Amino acid sequence: MADAQSPPPAEGAPGPSKNELKRLEKAKKAAEKEAEKAAKKKEAEAQKAAAEVDYAAQFYGPTVLHQSQTRNNQKRVQISELSGLDGESVIFRARLQTSRAQGSKMVFLNLRQRTDSVQALVSVAPDKVSKQMVKWCAGISDESIVLVHGLVTKSPEPIKSASVQDVEVHVSQIFLISGVDGRLPFSLEDASRPDTEETAVEGDAEGRQFSRVLLDTRLNNRVVDLRTPTNQAVFKLQAGVGRLFREFLDSKGFTEIHSPKLQGAATESGASVFKVTYFKGNAFLAQSPQLAKQMAIAADFERVYEVGPVFRAEDSNTHRHMTEFMGLDLEMTIEEHYHEVMELLDDLFLTLFRGLREQYKKEIAVVGEQFPAEEFTWLEKEQGGTLKLTFREAVDLLVADGVSRDVLDDINTENEKRLGRIVKAKYHTDYFIIDKFPMELRPFYTMPDPVDPTLSNSYDFFMRGEEILSGAQRIHDPILLMEKMRSKGIEPDSMKSYVDAFRMGCAPHGGGGIGLERVLMFFLKLNNIRRASLFPRDPKRLDP
Amino acid sequence: MADAQSPPPAEGAPGPSKNELKRLEKAKKAAEKEAEKAAKKKEAEAQKAAAEVDYAAQFYGPTVLHQSQTRNNQKRVQISELSGLDGESVIFRARLQTSRAQGSKMVFLNLRQRTDSVQALVSVAPDKVSKQMVKWCAGISDESIVLVHGLVTKSPEPIKSASVQDVEVHVSQIFLISGVDGRLPFSLEDASRPDTEETAVEGDAEGRQFSRVLLDTRLNNRVVDLRTPTNQAVFKLQAGVGRLFREFLDSKGFTEIHSPKLQGAATESGASVFKVTYFKGNAFLAQSPQLAKQMAIAADFERVYEVGPVFRAEDSNTHRHMTEFMGLDLEMTIEEHYHEVMELLDDLFLTLFRGLREQYKKEIAVVGEQFPAEEFTWLEKEQGGTLKLTFREAVDLLVADGVSRDVLDDINTENEKRLGRIVKAKYHTDYFIIDKFPMELRPFYTMPDPVDPTLSNSYDFFMRGEEILSGAQRIHDPILLMEKMRSKGIEPDSMKSYVDAFRMGCAPHGGGGIGLERVLMFFLKLNNIRRASLFPRDPKRLDP
Repeated sequence: MADAQSPPPAEGAPGPSKNELKRLEKAKKAAEKEAEKAAKKKEAEAQKAAAEVDYAAQFYGPTVLHQSQTRNNQKRVQISELSGLDGESVIFRARLQTSRAQGSKMVFLNLRQRTDSVQALVSVAPDKVSKQMVKWCAGISDESIVLVHGLVTKSPEPIKSASVQDVEVHVSQIFLISGVDGRLPFSLEDASRPDTEETAVEGDAEGRQFSRVLLDTRLNNRVVDLRTPTNQAVFKLQAGVGRLFREFLDSKGFTEIHSPKLQGAATESGASVFKVTYFKGNAFLAQSPQLAKQMAIAADFERVYEVGPVFRAEDSNTHRHMTEFMGLDLEMTIEEHYHEVMELLDDLFLTLFRGLREQYKKEIAVVGEQFPAEEFTWLEKEQGGTLKLTFREAVDLLVADGVSRDVLDDINTENEKRLGRIVKAKYHTDYFIIDKFPMELRPFYTMPDPVDPTLSNSYDFFMRGEEILSGAQRIHDPILLMEKMRSKGIEPDSMKSYVDAFRMGCAPHGGGGIGLERVLMFFLKLNNIRRASLFPRDPKRLDP
Repeated sequence: MADAQSPPPAEGAPGPSKNELKRLEKAKKAAEKEAEKAAKKKEAEAQKAAAEVDYAAQFYGPTVLHQSQTRNNQKRVQISELSGLDGESVIFRARLQTSRAQGSKMVFLNLRQRTDSVQALVSVAPDKVSKQMVKWCAGISDESIVLVHGLVTKSPEPIKSASVQDVEVHVSQIFLISGVDGRLPFSLEDASRPDTEETAVEGDAEGRQFSRVLLDTRLNNRVVDLRTPTNQAVFKLQAGVGRLFREFLDSKGFTEIHSPKLQGAATESGASVFKVTYFKGNAFLAQSPQLAKQMAIAADFERVYEVGPVFRAEDSNTHRHMTEFMGLDLEMTIEEHYHEVMELLDDLFLTLFRGLREQYKKEIAVVGEQFPAEEFTWLEKEQGGTLKLTFREAVDLLVADGVSRDVLDDINTENEKRLGRIVKAKYHTDYFIIDKFPMELRPFYTMPDPVDPTLSNSYDFFMRGEEILSGAQRIHDPILLMEKMRSKGIEPDSMKSYVDAFRMGCAPHGGGGIGLERVLMFFLKLNNIRRASLFPRDPKRLDP
């Protein structure tokens, strides 16, 4: 440390008269006394100041609001890269998950980026890190965003509290980019605990008490909830499902389309459609791209898919219903048989399952820590391929298991799940297809079976005993279509453009619709569809 | 040709008595006369039958409704493959665009699949193609769907009326899969003519009269209109824009998100929002994913994009406005400067332009035949890169061109286009960026310039002199955000979840929103945005 220099001594003036000398001497003494006093005071002040001077003042603190004032092109790193940067000085932006002070000279920070975290250490060091700096760091609110400069250093032992376990960061500078204004609704640690049962307060195996965060609390504060490693991983996987869906279909000659969500008439089923005020009239929100994608087939698109929102005005408050969800829809022409479509869809799902397992190992593992689940299983081609049952065979399995045949005109949700368990026990798969549904269970545009008109050329796909896809060959003949519409109480004129499309010639075709969030929910066993939606919508939730 | 063989001569019987001979002779003559008579009758009947029997009866005709009755796994080919199949027997499904009979023994068919077409010939041949078959073929309605069996045969001269010019198909069997019930609204040939001016009736260079098809007529009968090679190509290109957008962003570490279109409150601007009846209350349709994507940033997603519909209740009936269109939106954190976002967006557009030009040559050429346009130009890096003007520089260019500075507080559509022409003449590019818009022209969430508070950290991107992207650095500080909201007359409490997201700590960030249909329209110079939308929606159109 550099000592403060004392001022150079003052030079004396030439001698004066005796009387004056006396007077001067007196005055001098008084002045000396005064000076001494002043010097003492000054010294005390200097000592006090020296103790207060913060040699690290420019190495920490809040920053002015980031308005793109400057651009230095400093390299910034990711926490996930740190293991390979041992011994290097790095700069990175991160969220402060928690801080833990050890006395007044040291503070540990847990810094987070998405699913990655690292331990950082701010420790007093002469000229570098001051006590004031340590104190300030210990006071930063959890979940603040900070800019950290530091040295990556091998950790003597694995750091269990972070995802990067072999290195830690010795902080040299730290600045606050964005703080937290108010109380957090819950801590990220509480929100990240394994979700075996959702009760308000629980103890862990060692008897410690901690808070569980209820789903509603999470959804009310979704922005904070989405920061958990689990949610970061869930939405990486959601994007993955969409990407794998499109890549597979692109490779099979499909064209992506975007059909309008605003419709002139209530389509498919009037009961569950949302009404929109449209200038001086009304419009309705599409319940699916069904009509549009069939019209695209009549317009010679041959093979189309769409990834888009679908809207259902159903007042269902269940674990698997939302009023708005993402539909993964496809439609394609048929050459000889609708099983061409069913087989392509099966191929699509196997490609999807394999793709998720191979390309998203890390994310699946992260989700599994919070939502422990038996790994999702399916039958590969060398295992005989996907199990395909007819509706009749599915009913027979349920009857053999003790369900009364009388209640099996349709298979309700409860029996669907039961069938899932029967199939899992007997065939060792979480994924199967039911083909040839009774005609009366399907929408008017479904093609009847050529031999038994009470059956139809339609199928559902299941994951963990719940439906995730519904599809069929469609009626491409306008006369039969109108007949079926009338038999379901729909006036063909109310869907004139749709019926007209088939009057202008249309190839035989079929397709299916997949619920994106359902696929994700059942693959990961999230137990509630809202967990698979960024900002879920149900009859009681429109915000955030 | 093999001649018909005459029957072998009959052998005579040994001789009987004289009287008997006489009687027998008489009886013989009578029998011969009878036999002759019967033979003549038989012959006449045979001749008549021969004329009526259709030896090709099972080679043509309507089929029963396709209900997936059988599955033979017959290989079917694409018209685009036919050039390479000279001499082979093929089967394919196609649309009959037109037929032209030559006398009673031959008919030419123009068969189409999407942007591909081929000439087929049905010509009388003994035991193979009958006159009846030719007659039936000549009577099939245009735009019917047929299944054709035939022999691919080299054509003696290039067939100008088809996209496959070197071979034709000699038809051996042809079946009607789906006919046309009623009159076509317009012929595909009329709908495919070069679109230089849209008038009802026009003549071509050789003085022939033909019908032009008006845009409204097309949109009213969109399913037939979409079958033109131009539209088939336009929507291949539309899918291409989406694919290139996602591929680029996936490669840059972005995550695709899906944000809800149903909102609890009228966001951004209350005036142009659609109201939805939501059970016992109301909801509103999202005018953009702006709030959701910023909230995803506050939730640590770091870099997100969304491809989804956006809704604008603006009563604008212009060539470039729709009430529903596809938004290509992105948002990302900023490290040092918002130009990081602007430069990534620029990189995205160059990748998109290059990708379209390289991967969609055929489609661009097909569209160019109907919509002739100067090829879209941009400045590659070796040409100095994209032109970036500040708003002030853009105004100066307009002033130098004679526009009064008084009217240039904002640049209206007319002056935008004028600027596009000035820039094209001076810099030889159809694509440029304007940066640093005045604060008062931008939405409340725009970050002000750090030096001049009347300016903002915001930009627009232009193609052929019209805006296709708007973006900016956003305000991530809740205090400044609320101040700006109030200054625009918005009560922060009305968007509480959004404001709260920034209270919980949020990284500096920026982004932009692109109109998919606009990009397509300006790249291809389609002149009206409705042509770039599958089933466009405007204040007057909700159907089909």
